[in-house]
Amino acid sequence: MRTTITDVAKQAGVSMKTVSRVLNNEPNVAKATRERVMEVADQLDYSPNLAARGLASSRSYLIALLYDNASPSYLTNIQRGAIEACRQQGYHLLLEPMTAAQTESEEAERILRRMNVDGAILTAPLCDLTALRNSLTRLDIPYVAVGPQDADEGAAVRMDDQDAAFQMVKYLIDLGHRDIGFIAGDPDHASTRHRRAGFDAAMQDAGLHAGTDRVVQGDYTFRSGLEAAKRMLEDPTSRPTAIFAANDDMAAGVLSAANRLNIAVPDALSVCGFDDTPIARILWPQLTTVAQPIHQMGRKAAEILISRDKRRDPATHTFDYELIIRGSTARAGT
Amino acid sequence: MRTTITDVAKQAGVSMKTVSRVLNNEPNVAKATRERVMEVADQLDYSPNLAARGLASSRSYLIALLYDNASPSYLTNIQRGAIEACRQQGYHLLLEPMTAAQTESEEAERILRRMNVDGAILTAPLCDLTALRNSLTRLDIPYVAVGPQDADEGAAVRMDDQDAAFQMVKYLIDLGHRDIGFIAGDPDHASTRHRRAGFDAAMQDAGLHAGTDRVVQGDYTFRSGLEAAKRMLEDPTSRPTAIFAANDDMAAGVLSAANRLNIAVPDALSVCGFDDTPIARILWPQLTTVAQPIHQMGRKAAEILISRDKRRDPATHTFDYELIIRGSTARAGT
Repeated sequence: MRTTITDVAKQAGVSMKTVSRVLNNEPNVAKATRERVMEVADQLDYSPNLAARGLASSRSYLIALLYDNASPSYLTNIQRGAIEACRQQGYHLLLEPMTAAQTESEEAERILRRMNVDGAILTAPLCDLTALRNSLTRLDIPYVAVGPQDADEGAAVRMDDQDAAFQMVKYLIDLGHRDIGFIAGDPDHASTRHRRAGFDAAMQDAGLHAGTDRVVQGDYTFRSGLEAAKRMLEDPTSRPTAIFAANDDMAAGVLSAANRLNIAVPDALSVCGFDDTPIARILWPQLTTVAQPIHQMGRKAAEILISRDKRRDPATHTFDYELIIRGSTARAGT
Repeated sequence: MRTTITDVAKQAGVSMKTVSRVLNNEPNVAKATRERVMEVADQLDYSPNLAARGLASSRSYLIALLYDNASPSYLTNIQRGAIEACRQQGYHLLLEPMTAAQTESEEAERILRRMNVDGAILTAPLCDLTALRNSLTRLDIPYVAVGPQDADEGAAVRMDDQDAAFQMVKYLIDLGHRDIGFIAGDPDHASTRHRRAGFDAAMQDAGLHAGTDRVVQGDYTFRSGLEAAKRMLEDPTSRPTAIFAANDDMAAGVLSAANRLNIAVPDALSVCGFDDTPIARILWPQLTTVAQPIHQMGRKAAEILISRDKRRDPATHTFDYELIIRGSTARAGT
């Protein structure tokens, strides 16, 4: 026969309410009582299931992760962080992919209403969609944005993309590079604007100027990086000595273009990316890039939702990045 | 005020029981009645939340995906397939990573007991762990294995790794290759044994023999592929003309080794992988590989659990693979 909460309460000599408080990590239970209840629950092999716990406490113990078209490494990293936080508090992570177009559909509304979660993590670019934010507010589902366009619309976790891009370009300039190309990302993503601004600021700071042919619009795909690099590198008499691609996939495209044109990396061309995806270590030479704290951001987003501090503390938490220097960059003119 | 099931029943002129049946996709409701109830539910903007639906029907409408250390592209593919199936039936997907070591711990037992799902998808190598299978059986949680070691232990989805490896090696032999190297994967994975068996069978079938120095043990990582390829390629007087790595990450290592040793791919060395991960298209040259039906397997696994046919139909569903021929392989001696 299945152990019930009554059995635990009896054996531990406390009320059912106390057992419930302990198992739901609620405050106002003496440490000794908490320990005794946990011990008895373990002995009796008692663990209330989600539905029962949910009804008892008006929580569902579920957090949803909403994402649109995230790269596999980004998605698995953010999941890993969120799940770590969930497990510590007996929560579970539910996955809800959703395209930007879908967020205005009845289907999305139905999914959101049905999912019965205690909160939602919204990754970029979903977190910038007003329709989705409004739906969640209407349904009274707290949410935390990951990498939003504007940092002042409620709880958010982010990193300083602009500063990271600035530091990467400064690193190239310190290596002696003067003619530096930049490949921008998908215009729909907030990160695109921030990374571009960092590039511009670092160039200006060093008194350098990138001509219009040195800044090419990409869309974060390998192919767009390849095409952009081909254009920048096709004229052997006028090539940049370094190219900074706004993500690793596009930087992989730059390496591929250099390969096809027989341009030696890093001797004749330094290449760097952004994100430190697994690809960065698999390319040859390995890619200089920016490591994003995606795992930590996922973890913090879940923690905010679980602690229910969201409404009291609608702050933006900014995380540190790291420049990862590998073999694809070198001193200019070596 | 929130619409309740009573409002829907009243407006549709049916019993609450009928509304519940319709919303839970249960059988034995006339088509016209089903349509009327759905229409009214839509009009009244009614959608029961998970906890309420779960209690009403003894289902939780949750499926768990259990995985250990899966590669990002594998994981996101299987998630995508499972979520497609879940959405069609109003289900949601819950993520539960778990290491092999963890499956025998109390922590794992607690997570499994607590998650309250209608079924679990077990990816390899978790699906081969007796302790985990026993825990799930004891907790009365139906499960479907993805790519199990043995195909006769209950419901499973898989592809024929051995046949795929056989066809890949046959393709190399048809290109004129006679001296073919093989890099095997992680011994803990069932796929390793099957892919090796396919290699052996194809060689034997063609009357060829791979010496012991032509088969090297890897562990599915880029680094192990790099090291294995270095060993096979270090002696310029005795090099294979083709190397088949048992996954794409190791094949990327082979390309990197060839690059460092100035061996032209595919002119002097054909290289192929397995899995068709995004990396395969980002390498230069692009990788010849095997596309696995991971997305379809995830979808089918969720469908089996949702339809609750598992106990009636403990069959293994085998999916087709596809050889993807790209630039990393060519005729021998060209």
